Amino acid sequence: MPRILPFKQVDVFTGELFKGNPVAVTNCMDIDESEVTTEQLQAIASWTNLSETTFLFKPTDAGCDYKLRIFTPGSELPFAGHPTVGSCKAFLEFTGVKKEKIIQQCGLGHIELTVTDDQKISFKAGPNSIEEISDSVIKSYESTMNINSIERPKLLRVGPNWAVLLVKDSEEVLRIEPDLVAMTALNRENVHTGVIVGGLKTGCTAGDAYEIRAFAPNEGVSEDPVCGSGTLAFLRYLQEINQFKESKTFHITQGARVGRNGNLYCKIDILPDGKVDYYVGGYAIAILNGTITL
Amino acid sequence: MPRILPFKQVDVFTGELFKGNPVAVTNCMDIDESEVTTEQLQAIASWTNLSETTFLFKPTDAGCDYKLRIFTPGSELPFAGHPTVGSCKAFLEFTGVKKEKIIQQCGLGHIELTVTDDQKISFKAGPNSIEEISDSVIKSYESTMNINSIERPKLLRVGPNWAVLLVKDSEEVLRIEPDLVAMTALNRENVHTGVIVGGLKTGCTAGDAYEIRAFAPNEGVSEDPVCGSGTLAFLRYLQEINQFKESKTFHITQGARVGRNGNLYCKIDILPDGKVDYYVGGYAIAILNGTITL
Repeated sequence: MPRILPFKQVDVFTGELFKGNPVAVTNCMDIDESEVTTEQLQAIASWTNLSETTFLFKPTDAGCDYKLRIFTPGSELPFAGHPTVGSCKAFLEFTGVKKEKIIQQCGLGHIELTVTDDQKISFKAGPNSIEEISDSVIKSYESTMNINSIERPKLLRVGPNWAVLLVKDSEEVLRIEPDLVAMTALNRENVHTGVIVGGLKTGCTAGDAYEIRAFAPNEGVSEDPVCGSGTLAFLRYLQEINQFKESKTFHITQGARVGRNGNLYCKIDILPDGKVDYYVGGYAIAILNGTITL
Repeated sequence: MPRILPFKQVDVFTGELFKGNPVAVTNCMDIDESEVTTEQLQAIASWTNLSETTFLFKPTDAGCDYKLRIFTPGSELPFAGHPTVGSCKAFLEFTGVKKEKIIQQCGLGHIELTVTDDQKISFKAGPNSIEEISDSVIKSYESTMNINSIERPKLLRVGPNWAVLLVKDSEEVLRIEPDLVAMTALNRENVHTGVIVGGLKTGCTAGDAYEIRAFAPNEGVSEDPVCGSGTLAFLRYLQEINQFKESKTFHITQGARVGRNGNLYCKIDILPDGKVDYYVGGYAIAILNGTITL
């Protein structure tokens, strides 16, 4: 007997329809998680063909608002950025809950989300680490994009492993026509998820607005239109090269070369004890609203 | 002011949930076509990320039931197989119309659809043509899949241009692990959309059941799970090599290697005047039902 559940497909990191990154969200909060199998959830994620498909369940940990399971077309993930923001938006709309702090239970643990009065949703990033990239690999990456880095590129491990490069300005970022075949080979050899390139927005002198692009051809994604984890990697990289001593907010735009207009509102939060937290957020719009039969 | 329209995402060529090929269908029959722009429809098709996204409009030609516009994430198509079957299913559910013959107006002209009592939907194929492939290209294709053809492969122009190969049986079809890099290069050099390989179902002696697979790596689709135009190409190829003098039905299965279970019910219809018509059809299920905001 097929089961019919509430469904939304949410556009994430945009206030403008069809200009963000979509995530498919099924509301399973009124059934028990044991009533569906992982194989069933995986089959749905393969069928939607989106980079991520998620399922909201009743939380099993105290203090959490919901439990989220996140699938790509091929596998289950412990965490992902844009699906977290989009699924939180769907949770708020499905349940009518109105509050500023939401706790998401997921494979990575408990994720803190903040909902502003104007409905921007941000998540606080989990652990990450930073590593060197060899001179020869840096040179190879620069050559696949015909660019020159203005700071030494680094490898950011934020879940996915992004090679992060900074160039002169956003115009140089937007000009890039990567050699995807060569980049695929480099990603594969070095076990990198892909490449993030950013540059200061032209005309912006305050140093707080950047254009970035995310390439992950070895994952089957030539260019990810609006990438949460890539944005986090870039933010962490900015802290590495600037060593900010005071908290700072950033506006990051993404997707212009692939017909999108992603807007990410980010914060590097310097705590009194010197610890640094990273926040990534934006608006989200539920574009498809209805049911899914499974 | 955003507009909210009825929406369905339909699984095509399957009677089993999530085992077919999805198409996203928006019902625009209650608005005027001039109220939406091609750019808007294209943006929606890019966002759904499905191989095809369609829009039902009021027909402008007499005798037609609806007008269909079909988009891939990158462009508009005059016709496509599985979107036609899925959009007809959506039309029947949106409108409550019940009849055996449906005429679809689209870029290719008027497409005749048949709806059986048990809700199988078939379309009659439009014009197609058949061409030779050179010995060296045949050899190269066989080498990318490590197979031997049992009949001379041909190029089938059915909208897309498919190189069609026949091997010993379905087990050989299912064993194929194509060299996608080499196949991409061959597709590109020869301006072929991709490759269809079929084989008689093992254990089947009647000669009327085949397993086929569709590879189109140069179009960004390593393996198309359930391909309507590829099935038509294969059907036309069967007629070419067998020169049937009497009408014949075929059951074609597809998608086993990518977790799907596509079932296509096809007919080669030999008319009294010797003319041959081709019919491709199957079941379809609306899995997502609701609205889209645009």
